Amino acid sequence: MFRKVLIANRGEVAVRIIRACEELGIKTVAIYSEVDTRSLHVKKADEAYLIPGDPIRAYLDYVRIVDLAKSVGADAIHPGYGFLAENADFARYCQKRGIVFIGPKPEHIELFGDKVKAKQMMQKLGIPTIPGSPEPLRNYEDALHYAREIGFPVILKSAFGGGGRGMRVVRTPEELPHLFESAYREAETFFGKGDLFLEKYLDDPKHIEVQILGDKYGNVVHLGERDCSIQRKHQKIIEITPCPVLPPSIRNKMLGLSVRAMMQVGYESAGTLEFLVDLKTGEFYFIEMNTRLQVEHTITEMVTGIDIVETMIRIAMGEPLPFMQNDITFRGCAIEFRINAEDPRKNFAPAPGKITAYYSPGGPGIRMDAGVYKDYVIPPYYDSMIAKMSVWALSWERAVARARRAIDEFVVRGVPTNIPLHRQVVRDPDFISGYFGIRFLEKKLPTYQFEIEGEIDPESLALAASAAIAAYYGL
Amino acid sequence: MFRKVLIANRGEVAVRIIRACEELGIKTVAIYSEVDTRSLHVKKADEAYLIPGDPIRAYLDYVRIVDLAKSVGADAIHPGYGFLAENADFARYCQKRGIVFIGPKPEHIELFGDKVKAKQMMQKLGIPTIPGSPEPLRNYEDALHYAREIGFPVILKSAFGGGGRGMRVVRTPEELPHLFESAYREAETFFGKGDLFLEKYLDDPKHIEVQILGDKYGNVVHLGERDCSIQRKHQKIIEITPCPVLPPSIRNKMLGLSVRAMMQVGYESAGTLEFLVDLKTGEFYFIEMNTRLQVEHTITEMVTGIDIVETMIRIAMGEPLPFMQNDITFRGCAIEFRINAEDPRKNFAPAPGKITAYYSPGGPGIRMDAGVYKDYVIPPYYDSMIAKMSVWALSWERAVARARRAIDEFVVRGVPTNIPLHRQVVRDPDFISGYFGIRFLEKKLPTYQFEIEGEIDPESLALAASAAIAAYYGL
Repeated sequence: MFRKVLIANRGEVAVRIIRACEELGIKTVAIYSEVDTRSLHVKKADEAYLIPGDPIRAYLDYVRIVDLAKSVGADAIHPGYGFLAENADFARYCQKRGIVFIGPKPEHIELFGDKVKAKQMMQKLGIPTIPGSPEPLRNYEDALHYAREIGFPVILKSAFGGGGRGMRVVRTPEELPHLFESAYREAETFFGKGDLFLEKYLDDPKHIEVQILGDKYGNVVHLGERDCSIQRKHQKIIEITPCPVLPPSIRNKMLGLSVRAMMQVGYESAGTLEFLVDLKTGEFYFIEMNTRLQVEHTITEMVTGIDIVETMIRIAMGEPLPFMQNDITFRGCAIEFRINAEDPRKNFAPAPGKITAYYSPGGPGIRMDAGVYKDYVIPPYYDSMIAKMSVWALSWERAVARARRAIDEFVVRGVPTNIPLHRQVVRDPDFISGYFGIRFLEKKLPTYQFEIEGEIDPESLALAASAAIAAYYGL
Repeated sequence: MFRKVLIANRGEVAVRIIRACEELGIKTVAIYSEVDTRSLHVKKADEAYLIPGDPIRAYLDYVRIVDLAKSVGADAIHPGYGFLAENADFARYCQKRGIVFIGPKPEHIELFGDKVKAKQMMQKLGIPTIPGSPEPLRNYEDALHYAREIGFPVILKSAFGGGGRGMRVVRTPEELPHLFESAYREAETFFGKGDLFLEKYLDDPKHIEVQILGDKYGNVVHLGERDCSIQRKHQKIIEITPCPVLPPSIRNKMLGLSVRAMMQVGYESAGTLEFLVDLKTGEFYFIEMNTRLQVEHTITEMVTGIDIVETMIRIAMGEPLPFMQNDITFRGCAIEFRINAEDPRKNFAPAPGKITAYYSPGGPGIRMDAGVYKDYVIPPYYDSMIAKMSVWALSWERAVARARRAIDEFVVRGVPTNIPLHRQVVRDPDFISGYFGIRFLEKKLPTYQFEIEGEIDPESLALAASAAIAAYYGL
């Protein structure tokens, strides 16, 4: 049994871990940067220590953090997500210094951190991955050969860079010559080398992930899947469990293969396998594995009743999983909304600043995980996510109705947030249908409207009502 | 389908009903007294109307309320709990004016409102009631006769009054003569008449209630039981579902008899049968039935996943129950804590005033139902309950641990509250054991300590931590 755990993180996830420790009777140690003196995790921990200097390095300087853990008598460190969570060197260094790292084995962090190796490993374990050329394409003929093998449409990608540069969707063999050439030239310009890969192109697939828990004794269970298709620039914004439209045959296959693969590698602690799913063909493809707690673990907790953070801590203490797969029940549907301090009218630019009013939604089926409070000043150095609203109901339809009610209740003043985006998404028939893919927001954002704060669309009673509440609390 | 519902109530229960209506797409109408202009339910409703005059009468003047409902085009009225909730005349008046009363049939409100008739009815329906003398005792010999029949200990009670006056617990036949005489004299002094009844005396029984839902088509289900033994002067303070120590045989019998009885009377809407349970003998006795939504319905919602307020509205619209008994699943354990604005250092005297800081607990398994917010001024005219914190976890032990964590997080400043009481109860081994009866708080209160605000017991780390959070938010 741990007596004391250091949390090598900040904000809402640090608070989440402190809560789990408190419920287990474990003392908590927070660390904080100079700009985080008034951060909620500092207030909630039993002890808190300043790491002076650069505000980001404070949460990354693991030698210093492990030194601190040793000096205050902590038995273990929970890294949360981000920062050191997927740093295998850190996990190894903890081991070396006699501190338990609450997370997977270092070799698994390392293995799944290398996207190419991870994909090869998953292929060996019988999990489908996106078909593609095994090595850089030598020339146009080579590309045509693989494209015919895989089937059109395909996507050309630079071997050395991202951000859309050197990327081309190719739908017919006729398009291939000139698209290959232009992609090659662009890649050469931006990354110095024109080398290209080719992959099967999925048009607006679903992003679905599988939550896994494994212990030190070879037991592995899944806690169902999450639909994380609502993304903006590859950042998840809204997550759902279970996916409201995933056919049971696909779900069961995906969950079963994931558990089997994780048993074969002997995976320990919490982890998530991410897939792209083509609903039209029923095919799914592994894309990557996250060897850590996910932001959106809250909705899985609501549907299964299992406390994932508590279970990670118990696993790290050497306890066997307290449940087998057949003990786990799935009830209802849950949706998480990430509340980001960012300005929808300025292309969602991060918007740090002082929160002058804060009113949390409440009532049935609402779980709040916030890292902020009234009068808190959001520093500009970190992720813009300030809170998570998770909503549960017995069905997808009721969960959407409840989410609509709850997001309308939510009041944050002083800084702009993406709450106005959420209010429109939960009213969008294409969202409500459940049949949306990862391009949903890319397609929808140009059609959504974001008023200037306090400016109310007279057509929308719902927005007016929530704004009235906002105005009320702001004064 | 209702288009518009008027809520004939205030505070947290009005907010609860508004939330259910919003999720169903029903417009809401609030009413409010002159002192409730800034009350949360006024802000949350689509429309709100002032009922001028006396602040209590505003919520009781049903002719005026029904007139208002008619004039604004409301289809139905939800009475919440308290005020008009168990007023059969009001329910009948709604019917007469063509407004749907969201609750049981008027004849059931009337029947169960008469405690003597209710008891007789339940006896007929095969539900055990507390054995007692059927009519006032003529003399000491009469008392001895019934006491021998029922078995000692028994309790003598005045036929005309309450509050402990004229009440005596009699444990042996030898005590009966002088206790009969002193009880008679006391009753005569206080109520003008010395008439006494005699009942079986239960020493510190559990108070357990059964949640019932019935529709217009004869379907009745139970949603399990709640242990409401943690009371102060007959006011419930903490409620639990399921009761952590009730033997399954007793539970099943109690639930089964309750459903059968409610089927026989054709009960409609939500209702609660209250019992006293003697854990030593395994006997249970019906005491009364509440023909309305209960304050503590939240914990039943957490364990069953069923929205009781939504279901009441659907039943009133003529829908059949959307689930049969076998569809209802019970998962985990939930505890509700009533947060009252009252001063534990002044014998829990109500303490109206301005809330200068308010921080809600959050994270896994926490549901908040609050009627207040920062800067709200609690008026002195109403019940002192300002919020309900409901806590869920997979087991009783985990729910207690979580409750301890969450109640320590809770910050209310500006007015004293009973939060310090809750903090001690959740740490009390006799509470944690589950084996407590309705006299728990009566016995425990003298042993609990309530510091002056800001004064911290240096022995108690947990209290110190929570006070540190409080001090932080207060400044």
